[in-house]
Amino acid sequence: MDEEEHPGLDRTEIIRYHEGDRYPADDVVAREEPLEVRLNGQPLVYLMRLPGDDAVLAAGFCFSEGLISSREDIELLHHCRDGESPGEVATGVPGNLVEIKAKLTSGAERFDVARVVRTGCGGADLEREVDLAGIKVDSDVRFSPEVITGVPDLLLEGQEVFQATGGTHGAGLFGVDGRVVVVKEDVGRHNAVDKVLGHLLLSGDSVEDKGLILSGRLSYEMVLKGARVGIPLLCSVSAPTALGVGVGRKTGVTLVGFLRGGSFNVYSHPERIGGG
Amino acid sequence: MDEEEHPGLDRTEIIRYHEGDRYPADDVVAREEPLEVRLNGQPLVYLMRLPGDDAVLAAGFCFSEGLISSREDIELLHHCRDGESPGEVATGVPGNLVEIKAKLTSGAERFDVARVVRTGCGGADLEREVDLAGIKVDSDVRFSPEVITGVPDLLLEGQEVFQATGGTHGAGLFGVDGRVVVVKEDVGRHNAVDKVLGHLLLSGDSVEDKGLILSGRLSYEMVLKGARVGIPLLCSVSAPTALGVGVGRKTGVTLVGFLRGGSFNVYSHPERIGGG
Repeated sequence: MDEEEHPGLDRTEIIRYHEGDRYPADDVVAREEPLEVRLNGQPLVYLMRLPGDDAVLAAGFCFSEGLISSREDIELLHHCRDGESPGEVATGVPGNLVEIKAKLTSGAERFDVARVVRTGCGGADLEREVDLAGIKVDSDVRFSPEVITGVPDLLLEGQEVFQATGGTHGAGLFGVDGRVVVVKEDVGRHNAVDKVLGHLLLSGDSVEDKGLILSGRLSYEMVLKGARVGIPLLCSVSAPTALGVGVGRKTGVTLVGFLRGGSFNVYSHPERIGGG
Repeated sequence: MDEEEHPGLDRTEIIRYHEGDRYPADDVVAREEPLEVRLNGQPLVYLMRLPGDDAVLAAGFCFSEGLISSREDIELLHHCRDGESPGEVATGVPGNLVEIKAKLTSGAERFDVARVVRTGCGGADLEREVDLAGIKVDSDVRFSPEVITGVPDLLLEGQEVFQATGGTHGAGLFGVDGRVVVVKEDVGRHNAVDKVLGHLLLSGDSVEDKGLILSGRLSYEMVLKGARVGIPLLCSVSAPTALGVGVGRKTGVTLVGFLRGGSFNVYSHPERIGGG
């Protein structure tokens, strides 16, 4: 597909480690941006989403959450484009707003719609949007490429529930010597990370010399969780989002993605990867 | 591992389709239950999580969300076991509550902690917990095993952003003839489903003769979204959770998991799968 044409794609420069070589490369990452949905004049939800199909997404959210039950319930469905947003856009990004006016189901009236300001999967509560300038990970720890390529197997070994069910995400903490400190699992990828970080917090162990490996993607909220607690290296067997990369670059977190089969991509702060 | 010992595992009976055969089998699925976290006496968050490590998860959530910054901030961290919950437990499941008393960071005081009643990845807002008895999918449509085994390839073909980035989830709607109606992608698996269901809603097309294929897991919230709008068949290349299976059985949705390489498991309502 033509990356220039699609609203969901971003180009970014990376460092690629492959078969013992290290070289700069171009990569394509999926964009992740907050969409505000307003229902009958009230903020309903902020969704971290791939831009495109925004009105369709907003309508589908209302439909699948049981707020509306048919097309006829919708009186207005409007994706506000750049420059035509009514008033302030909480997301700060013009065009990231859909307005819906609709007749709600009787079920919807039972709960306070205005309280459903919540995150989607990998989402962020925009009202809690942090000032990234206040978060800076400045550890000068270094991890060797050999240590990094070894951790996915260690993660998998620790994922007992995954081995039994295939149905969990995993997260693991490891040191510069490649030894795993702890592996946790959960049905939610955020929870797996929070379990590991909770273990780290309660153990009183140091954070500035640890790496974190995830089975899930490096999306906005995952990178932010790592940055907030001071993790210098976040690795994933999967992809980052464009916003995840942006947060990693701004907060000083080294992001490693597509860590598979001995190869990986470095999306931010490659200075932490190299000989010990 | 010993499934009997682990709090995160459930056994369930399934129908397995494999190399043209169809037979009953036992399967192990990961449990998914809501955990309520109370911070300084206020409900903070409901997390749909794999049971186990509950206090650690609650502490890690507060840590990674920037509400506390060190172990010393925690005055009390208590996992309320069965029968010792103080007052009502909103989740309805005794033992699914962690109480934390902590000194909050100055950043945490800036926002209203009590509003952070939100979902985790795949989570559910317990205050909006639906009465499943009111949701019943009673379509008598039938899908052939051949149609079902063919849809993962059709989903992948439609996932243009995934092909470019490896960083998106996909969802697709298909008919009994195996033809794909629409494929949508997103950085969040919930959003991918909502985009497809939004398309269905706005198109005015029938729902009772459609199947939905997801790249993500069949967790509680995904199955509930499908059931609410009346989708009779939900398929995933990945695993279901135990709660997802429970919702499928109660609401009348046929759940197909591990749909890969021509094989699949049926977790609920197998009567919709068979010759046309």
